[in-house]
Amino acid sequence: MAGRSSRSNDRAVVSDNFFEPRSLAVIGASSHPEKVGFAVLANVIESGYQGEVFAVNPKAGVIQEIRCHPDVGSLPHPPDLAIVIVPANAVLETVTRCAGIGVRAGVVISAGFRETGIEGRRLENAVVKAARDGGMRLLGPNCLGIINTALPLNASFARRMPPRGSIGVLSQSGAICTSLIDWARAEGVGFSKLVSLGNGADLVESDFLDALADDTKTNVIAMYLEGVSNGERFFESVRRASRAKPVVFFKAGATTSGARAASSHTGSLAGSESSYEALCRQAPALRAYSVDELIELSLALATQPIPKGPSVALITNAGGPGIIASDACERAGLSLARIAGKTLDELKRFLPPAASLHNPIDLLGTADAKLYGLALETLLADPDVDAVMIILTPQAMTEVAGTADEILRIARGAEKPVVCSFMGADSVEAEVDRLQEAGIPNVAYPDKAMQILGRMYERRLQVMRPRPRAKRFPVDSKAVSSLFHGYVETGATTQLSPEDCREVLQAYGIPYSPLKVASDLAGAKRHAAEMGYPVVLKVMSRQVVHKTDVGGVVLDIRNQRRLASAYDDMISNVRRKMPAAKIDGVTVQKMVPQGRELILGVARDPQFGPLVMVGLGGIYVETFKDVAFRLVPMTPRDAASMLHELKAYRLLSGVRGEPPADIAAVEEVLLRVSQLAGEHPCLSEMDINPLIVYNAGDGCTCVDVRITLGG
Amino acid sequence: MAGRSSRSNDRAVVSDNFFEPRSLAVIGASSHPEKVGFAVLANVIESGYQGEVFAVNPKAGVIQEIRCHPDVGSLPHPPDLAIVIVPANAVLETVTRCAGIGVRAGVVISAGFRETGIEGRRLENAVVKAARDGGMRLLGPNCLGIINTALPLNASFARRMPPRGSIGVLSQSGAICTSLIDWARAEGVGFSKLVSLGNGADLVESDFLDALADDTKTNVIAMYLEGVSNGERFFESVRRASRAKPVVFFKAGATTSGARAASSHTGSLAGSESSYEALCRQAPALRAYSVDELIELSLALATQPIPKGPSVALITNAGGPGIIASDACERAGLSLARIAGKTLDELKRFLPPAASLHNPIDLLGTADAKLYGLALETLLADPDVDAVMIILTPQAMTEVAGTADEILRIARGAEKPVVCSFMGADSVEAEVDRLQEAGIPNVAYPDKAMQILGRMYERRLQVMRPRPRAKRFPVDSKAVSSLFHGYVETGATTQLSPEDCREVLQAYGIPYSPLKVASDLAGAKRHAAEMGYPVVLKVMSRQVVHKTDVGGVVLDIRNQRRLASAYDDMISNVRRKMPAAKIDGVTVQKMVPQGRELILGVARDPQFGPLVMVGLGGIYVETFKDVAFRLVPMTPRDAASMLHELKAYRLLSGVRGEPPADIAAVEEVLLRVSQLAGEHPCLSEMDINPLIVYNAGDGCTCVDVRITLGG
Repeated sequence: MAGRSSRSNDRAVVSDNFFEPRSLAVIGASSHPEKVGFAVLANVIESGYQGEVFAVNPKAGVIQEIRCHPDVGSLPHPPDLAIVIVPANAVLETVTRCAGIGVRAGVVISAGFRETGIEGRRLENAVVKAARDGGMRLLGPNCLGIINTALPLNASFARRMPPRGSIGVLSQSGAICTSLIDWARAEGVGFSKLVSLGNGADLVESDFLDALADDTKTNVIAMYLEGVSNGERFFESVRRASRAKPVVFFKAGATTSGARAASSHTGSLAGSESSYEALCRQAPALRAYSVDELIELSLALATQPIPKGPSVALITNAGGPGIIASDACERAGLSLARIAGKTLDELKRFLPPAASLHNPIDLLGTADAKLYGLALETLLADPDVDAVMIILTPQAMTEVAGTADEILRIARGAEKPVVCSFMGADSVEAEVDRLQEAGIPNVAYPDKAMQILGRMYERRLQVMRPRPRAKRFPVDSKAVSSLFHGYVETGATTQLSPEDCREVLQAYGIPYSPLKVASDLAGAKRHAAEMGYPVVLKVMSRQVVHKTDVGGVVLDIRNQRRLASAYDDMISNVRRKMPAAKIDGVTVQKMVPQGRELILGVARDPQFGPLVMVGLGGIYVETFKDVAFRLVPMTPRDAASMLHELKAYRLLSGVRGEPPADIAAVEEVLLRVSQLAGEHPCLSEMDINPLIVYNAGDGCTCVDVRITLGG
Repeated sequence: MAGRSSRSNDRAVVSDNFFEPRSLAVIGASSHPEKVGFAVLANVIESGYQGEVFAVNPKAGVIQEIRCHPDVGSLPHPPDLAIVIVPANAVLETVTRCAGIGVRAGVVISAGFRETGIEGRRLENAVVKAARDGGMRLLGPNCLGIINTALPLNASFARRMPPRGSIGVLSQSGAICTSLIDWARAEGVGFSKLVSLGNGADLVESDFLDALADDTKTNVIAMYLEGVSNGERFFESVRRASRAKPVVFFKAGATTSGARAASSHTGSLAGSESSYEALCRQAPALRAYSVDELIELSLALATQPIPKGPSVALITNAGGPGIIASDACERAGLSLARIAGKTLDELKRFLPPAASLHNPIDLLGTADAKLYGLALETLLADPDVDAVMIILTPQAMTEVAGTADEILRIARGAEKPVVCSFMGADSVEAEVDRLQEAGIPNVAYPDKAMQILGRMYERRLQVMRPRPRAKRFPVDSKAVSSLFHGYVETGATTQLSPEDCREVLQAYGIPYSPLKVASDLAGAKRHAAEMGYPVVLKVMSRQVVHKTDVGGVVLDIRNQRRLASAYDDMISNVRRKMPAAKIDGVTVQKMVPQGRELILGVARDPQFGPLVMVGLGGIYVETFKDVAFRLVPMTPRDAASMLHELKAYRLLSGVRGEPPADIAAVEEVLLRVSQLAGEHPCLSEMDINPLIVYNAGDGCTCVDVRITLGG
């Protein structure tokens, strides 16, 4: 293995055999041009693969000038990679034999497995077991194949090979792979490697993500995802990859978590998108919201440096598109650079008198290639300019080719990103291809071009600060484990009793207002006397979800006499409004002073595990859905940034002369809740509603808590 | 004029001379190929124009085989249209002479006017005056020209002519025109007419909008706008055009209203976008949010029928893109059609067993042209399907050309819209062009394609119900006029006194809580006694904007003793916190019962005139900006729909067992405020904050009102 990738193979599960095989066998090679087994062998040969190629087919003699072996057993030595295209019902035997002779890597292109139903799933599981038992790892089944443009090797049935480049592509859809290759060829966009993940029966997206993270030929990882096999593993892989290079993904399809019935506010607000959005902030990663953004953003990141700051200089030969780009600038989180001093003097020297010297710099419709070049050179040299965007509209006197030449001459190797928007089609097409092939991205519409530049800057912001470690508090985790254990033994989904909820908070150092359960008025009176008036009385019943709606809550009870009447009223109210509800008793709670109300909670994503939520409390949480989510484990920065993410943040930081709330106390509660959720996988949902927050220095307190286990 | 357009010329200011001249003169024609005067003449000739063409140039003899006339005076007869390309300083004389010999229409392509500064603006005004005095109307100056593909005539210096089609294009940017033409040619998109508006010195966007509304060759109007010259006129023109055909516009650039200092909540919330958003809802119109959406949506609307309902059948040969499109479906306001009954039986007959029979209908990667055709035919015939979207990914066995043939055969002339998404570039390009030229729109990305279909359905929803008339209430408009008149005479921007604000509300039948002004404690006591306790005391001072912040508001004063102490506290608080503030007195107001709080107001857009706003009151209006705007005059439907538009609508309609609020009463106040704003142009801003809304049947009442005049 000397001289091959320096990646340490003891950790990586995607061995070099997949991307850099010295020999390979096409098992199921065919002499019929309409068959996939023909296309794959042809692609391997036509791609210029330099390693040894075997073809396996029991019937054929010679296919595409390669002598066929009748079966795997007759190969002279085990190939590094087996590409399997035999019918589904022959795959198990083929893979078993491959593993038997010492093949360590296989790409199963054949379809007819999990995607066809329960029988197919069984077959798929058997294939994976056979491979693993024999020390072999598999890509697929039901995939397009694998491509490494650098080797080169096209071990797929894609019609064509993408150009060589530095975007590594992972896709859970084979059809998307073929479309991406098609686009790449048309637009001059280059890929390093392309992996069609198929059913991901053995090796999954995270495995190849790890491999691309280590791949020196790959500068950007672009993924098309429909789901992930293990969210926590994926989070870790993205985090690791993102330290080395930008990770961009497009996510299609809704996961099941969105559809699942939720027993809490947090659960009902945690849609399938929350986890992916949280992943982007925390890993970090860049999410593309359309397929074209996936391509354009990946290309820009692969070919251009990321901007060091938000200041963009905008060069144009027409006012309208300049306005469009300027509009998009602020929306993209960027700003137009201020043109002054030496740069301004320089521009004055060569620009026509009617040109706009201020950003956007309008060279006018008469601008020739030289003028574009001078402007670009001057602006790139300005230390206050972080990026340059060049708009060209094909007008009567425009030198499209010459301008492209100038841009290529000046921008190639510049330390600042240059993004072009040559508008139109017919008359700029050839030059756009030339620009993109040479590593200058072009986005046909100026607003989109600005958006891409903004996403590049987002990467800059993401990597600017190192990610801190998750914080651990000294807590009594064991007490909570044994408490939860008692519930879970009884089976199914369970709600903790209000008192047990308090015990959990207590064990994790989360402040709460005292609460006691009473089964009758006498008990309620005793508890109230102990904790001191005023108190709050609430009905306890599994059937009553919204207590206020049925008269099940009485606030601010100031003495024993009031308590007695409140108790009687409450019981009769609930009996009248919900005759079917079984009343389990009442809770007596110390009335706490008013403050700003938040809702805080935990939901569990079936793929990503626990998510922590925070939002503005009261009925507003339902109306405005002003909530933020983070995956567990959370860092202190996550806690701070999720509060900042709320539109209601200004209600916490203080508006209209109000003093700021105790934000530090809320952040600590968030981190303690994150630790609680992380340490107890059986905690399925949790709502703290409200968390009352006092002025800075005065802390916060949980008033009502619901915890659901199992699920 | 017999046999030409049937449009009645007595109303239209854009005469047939512009679009269908029988003769034209290119004034400033040039023999130098690099000059605009050469390009325009060449374009006129090459476009195949059949009318009489004159060239005017004092020096040249023959240009492009056309004999030149030395000046306008030597033309044998006045041409229908003069195209002016002489230098800016010669335009005034040229236009004057043209008008003098009876030319009625001119396109001034020459630049060097308003866009160059104050001198240029003066010259521009003089040119317009000369034209109008002579009975001539002008397009431009500083424009690309005008194109009518049907005549045909290319009277512009655009490099090329767009294909013939039914999209009428108006653009305030010449460069955007050239880009649009370029795209149109590459994508097989056809235009009916194209007008580059230039500086719009005489004829403006609304004039040509009126003309395109009446043009039988135009099915869709697509506009690129940077602003409008007269918003109220534009509103009326869009409304009129939209009755006949869809109006789509892209708006670039921020208007000044966003930047302007506002003295009210409403004013500060009314950004430059509010008017355009309101226009879309009220006129109605479709706003494109990117240049590509402008093109793609216009093309779809020009070539396909609009869907009668939201149910889409989705045909695909790959799972991934099908998921992407399905995701986009709900976001686009559409739904996937339920496939059942006869359609399901039919599909079962010819689809392969592994194909998905449910929406999206996945024909699998092996689908040939025939299968696509069968599926399309079957789904178009299903009465529960309102539109069909066809995704094609170029796979090994895909018949791209054959599938396009089938689609063209079946979809052309269908009563339901068909939108394609042939993905990729290289291998589908030629077929995409062929589809689009034949009137089947193709959008390369399936999410974008679904979005376009959604916007088409939006047009359906817009035209489904006729727009009701604005409602007029019997009010005392004269009393308000004379009250305002007294203020406006004193000049500049003025705030009405609290008592005068009440008078205005009174005159327009808008309910409010009683309020009196007092200059001292004795007066306050007298007013309180008259209206009855409890009362609210507020400080009056022009310098104090947020009264609460300086202790300038005391609520719920229940008797005379409390009033006295509140008065003293307030005066000393305000003096201490804002020593510079001049205290003009206090207001005594009847304390009203609590209810749901709204904010309601008027802002004035410099282009569109008054806008009425409504939103949830309190600090939430600033935090969530949950507000809705409508242009004046408002209809009852506008009032209802703007409340529905609020996220907080559910707080009005009743959540958690709360009874619904008196929405009808709020709607009436909105309409009365709309009438007030419409009848008094000097009313510049108005805030009603809060408007307290009671339960249904109990009405609402304005508590605090601010009115600003002038500005």
